[in-house]
Amino acid sequence: MANNFTFYSPTEIVFGRGTHTQAAEYIRKYGGSRVLVVYGSERVVKSGLLEQVVAPMRQAGLVCHLLGGVVPNPHLGKVYEGIEIGKREGIDFLLAVGGGSVIDTAKAIAYGLAEPDRDVWELFDGKRAAKACLPLASVLTIAAAGSESSNSAVITNEKTGQKRPYDDNLARPKFAVMNPELTLTLPDYQTQSGCADIMMHTMERYFTGSGNMELTDALAEALLRTVMTNARILHEDPANYDARAEVMWAGSLAHNDLTGCGNGGGDFATHMLEHEMGGMFDVTHGAGLAAIWPSWARYVCASAMPRFVRYAVNVMGVTPGADDAETAEKGIRAMEDFYRSIGMPTNMRELGIAPTDDQLHAMAASCASACGGSKGSARLLYEADMYNIYKMAL
Amino acid sequence: MANNFTFYSPTEIVFGRGTHTQAAEYIRKYGGSRVLVVYGSERVVKSGLLEQVVAPMRQAGLVCHLLGGVVPNPHLGKVYEGIEIGKREGIDFLLAVGGGSVIDTAKAIAYGLAEPDRDVWELFDGKRAAKACLPLASVLTIAAAGSESSNSAVITNEKTGQKRPYDDNLARPKFAVMNPELTLTLPDYQTQSGCADIMMHTMERYFTGSGNMELTDALAEALLRTVMTNARILHEDPANYDARAEVMWAGSLAHNDLTGCGNGGGDFATHMLEHEMGGMFDVTHGAGLAAIWPSWARYVCASAMPRFVRYAVNVMGVTPGADDAETAEKGIRAMEDFYRSIGMPTNMRELGIAPTDDQLHAMAASCASACGGSKGSARLLYEADMYNIYKMAL
Repeated sequence: MANNFTFYSPTEIVFGRGTHTQAAEYIRKYGGSRVLVVYGSERVVKSGLLEQVVAPMRQAGLVCHLLGGVVPNPHLGKVYEGIEIGKREGIDFLLAVGGGSVIDTAKAIAYGLAEPDRDVWELFDGKRAAKACLPLASVLTIAAAGSESSNSAVITNEKTGQKRPYDDNLARPKFAVMNPELTLTLPDYQTQSGCADIMMHTMERYFTGSGNMELTDALAEALLRTVMTNARILHEDPANYDARAEVMWAGSLAHNDLTGCGNGGGDFATHMLEHEMGGMFDVTHGAGLAAIWPSWARYVCASAMPRFVRYAVNVMGVTPGADDAETAEKGIRAMEDFYRSIGMPTNMRELGIAPTDDQLHAMAASCASACGGSKGSARLLYEADMYNIYKMAL
Repeated sequence: MANNFTFYSPTEIVFGRGTHTQAAEYIRKYGGSRVLVVYGSERVVKSGLLEQVVAPMRQAGLVCHLLGGVVPNPHLGKVYEGIEIGKREGIDFLLAVGGGSVIDTAKAIAYGLAEPDRDVWELFDGKRAAKACLPLASVLTIAAAGSESSNSAVITNEKTGQKRPYDDNLARPKFAVMNPELTLTLPDYQTQSGCADIMMHTMERYFTGSGNMELTDALAEALLRTVMTNARILHEDPANYDARAEVMWAGSLAHNDLTGCGNGGGDFATHMLEHEMGGMFDVTHGAGLAAIWPSWARYVCASAMPRFVRYAVNVMGVTPGADDAETAEKGIRAMEDFYRSIGMPTNMRELGIAPTDDQLHAMAASCASACGGSKGSARLLYEADMYNIYKMAL
């Protein structure tokens, strides 16, 4: 059954070898002149990448200011720092050179600069909706978050430990420069965490209780199979350009909403459950998703059995069991086997964290609060359900 | 092997039941105030659809002028008529209510109004590139051309018989209202011609000699299988909303470039061959494509054998033959069987036209001229090749 939907993914994609030097011309095209370039670790400085991106910008007459030091599960403090620089320097365009954390930070700064008299955290805290956002774009260095073409940003308030998403089409990036060469030297754990994140963005849209389009399902399944194939290739051969390209492009399509058209909105409980783990323990997001998903899946499976059966057969390629429940369980186990085969965890112990029971209760309470009480489409989860899933995932 | 690519599909999709009354709010959002509403036959007037679209626009304070009478293989004369109205009335936004011919006419009018001192035919005749285009959008009534989110327009110069495409991102529509309900009463021949056109937009991108991405292939194959399934459903049950929805959404994704990312540009010789048939005989575009494709496929097959083998197995589901050539031929035959099963022709006789040998030569000469001498990626075709394919297709 096809639900009504809207789809809007205006980001111009510039994909392939050598493209990272082209940011300057696209910033010009989209009206930028005073640019804040946001990045994460010093790796992008030492590798020479930042200079390769910024030098053509300066040659093109763009004023460039730099803001480094964005960390995974990016902090609100860095966002405030960027907003201050932006106000002082008259910034009119944000360029993120990095992965999801850097892009999300740039999005938050862009919101903050467009409404300079309001506290940007109010967006993430659910207090208000944005009315404007400065134009932004990215040179992507990690295939994972899909933030390069999504409307999402996730920021952690390091003082409260809250990790909160805010979604708004105002922050859809103007362009994304995607050069898979920039990911060739990524450590395997980061690569595979990225693959887990990419798959989850589509799985969140796939496991629903509110109807799905056949075309959307078929595209989602094709994408998931392709990511699995190439994740396995990269686990053995990390410098394989074509596999890097497949994963990088999949990362955008997995989260630009293409794989959710007509599905009624998706589930996204797994993401919300992981946000609390990331907020409390600073785990790698994709690995955190892998660690919580099997428990979520077993907990909600009976409420969305046809979806789990379809997933088991069409994505994981399992032979159907004696009944639907057995087929679904075979699919979940096949997914755990896949995670382990690429070095990803399937529970919190394998992830390397051991929350106390009090911490589990605190995470469940915070998750429920962040969700406005409940979350989910495959099955609507309340705080008690969230606690149960955390406990299963130990 | 992944070729570098750019991807840009900014059109906002508004999809589902009842959405056709929402055009007004989206025109406002995209800055329109004086709108030329373009449509085709009087069917959209008599059915009440035009009034349902335009009444909310007038209520929203938009100035609306109407231009009807667009025909299939739309004429340059109607474009000029629209440009004159647009100049006189100060039009700043074009809304097409119809299918590909109506949208393409609106695109051409939008080009003409943005550069009012130049002859718009120069774009289609390859004399110059556009520098500007007025904003435009559509309320889609036929799933076929994909023009609602593509950068393409095809116009026929009725005085010379030339049917010519012009592709430019300037003409990407701002939004597309896609209500599958509007297609429930389409005659079967038009429905199936639409399905043939949709499939061909992806097949043109699939059959290449210059490399392909695995993800793009997987998405393309998923889309093609979905269209085939739903074309068969609609042949038996034309009022099936879900099947109409699948086909309508596939029509956009088949031609917004998603299914060509990384393929080096696609083939598109079949489209150019058909344009001459459409220019000379005024055949339905999708049926014309079906009539010429099997001959094109057999003519170029040896030059792109791995693609034809993959298509045969992954899309048509045939069991591989003794060698690649046999597998490819089984795939082409399966495609002909599919065309026949939905009432589509597989050659010109079945299409209902019988060009003379002189006409075949004239079509080949005109096609080669329109292509700047040659066309194709699976195999590069020259005028003699085009003649051979036309002759095979009699």
